[in-house]
Amino acid sequence: MRLTSFTDYSLRTLLFLSAHRDRLVTIQDIADTHAISKNHLMKVVYQLGLSGLIETVRGRNGGLRLAKDPCDINIGTLVRHTESDFFIAECFDSANDHCAITPNCLLKHTLNDAMQAFLAVLDRQTLQDLLPPPPRDSHPVKLRRGAAT
Amino acid sequence: MRLTSFTDYSLRTLLFLSAHRDRLVTIQDIADTHAISKNHLMKVVYQLGLSGLIETVRGRNGGLRLAKDPCDINIGTLVRHTESDFFIAECFDSANDHCAITPNCLLKHTLNDAMQAFLAVLDRQTLQDLLPPPPRDSHPVKLRRGAAT
Repeated sequence: MRLTSFTDYSLRTLLFLSAHRDRLVTIQDIADTHAISKNHLMKVVYQLGLSGLIETVRGRNGGLRLAKDPCDINIGTLVRHTESDFFIAECFDSANDHCAITPNCLLKHTLNDAMQAFLAVLDRQTLQDLLPPPPRDSHPVKLRRGAAT
Repeated sequence: MRLTSFTDYSLRTLLFLSAHRDRLVTIQDIADTHAISKNHLMKVVYQLGLSGLIETVRGRNGGLRLAKDPCDINIGTLVRHTESDFFIAECFDSANDHCAITPNCLLKHTLNDAMQAFLAVLDRQTLQDLLPPPPRDSHPVKLRRGAAT
């Protein structure tokens, strides 16, 4: 059971952009870091742009950046957009369903319930929730003795 | 997002056998009904036999039958056996994970939670729960007037 590569790469692109909000990012940056082909990434970036999640700054020093705050990007909503379908079994794809027992079978309902439970977990998360916690300050403030008195 | 064909065909094979418990079933019966290749089904039947869920009766009039009662076949357990893996994204497959942010990324935990929620729904169902309700008796017993008095 797998999500599509398209969803996987979309999530990683957004995570990368979230982690580098201090600068513009190039597709090459993401491709090098994640060992994903630039061709795949261009389709991902194009689609994320259409969805209003990232924006492109043109020009010689241009690049990509998030168009929304990470806490405003819901993971369940994103995955519903990036997955091509949720045909978890043949009976979900009415155009290609050859299963003779579909009309009376309860399997489809059970698999649909399971899928909804999967998505419900993602619906509770935003991109912000997936980011690693900020590193602890490496130079902690030392309190002077008696400072609190 | 999809289950493998192997899981899909395993479920359909078991549903077919459940619906025809009054006789032995051949692979050809299942192949014809579900439009699945016999080659695929032979692998499915072999694996379900190894798992102790179906048994084969040899001989000229032989065939397949369920080796357990449908209410003793849990769907979550079955799907855990028939899915080749649960590598829902690349970071689940440690041998082929090229994602640079895996050590600090929380996406894997969220996807794992979602997968567990998916399987938890299937864990609550047995093969018996997926069978269509028995047809209503087409010749209902007519109570004689005054029979209850």
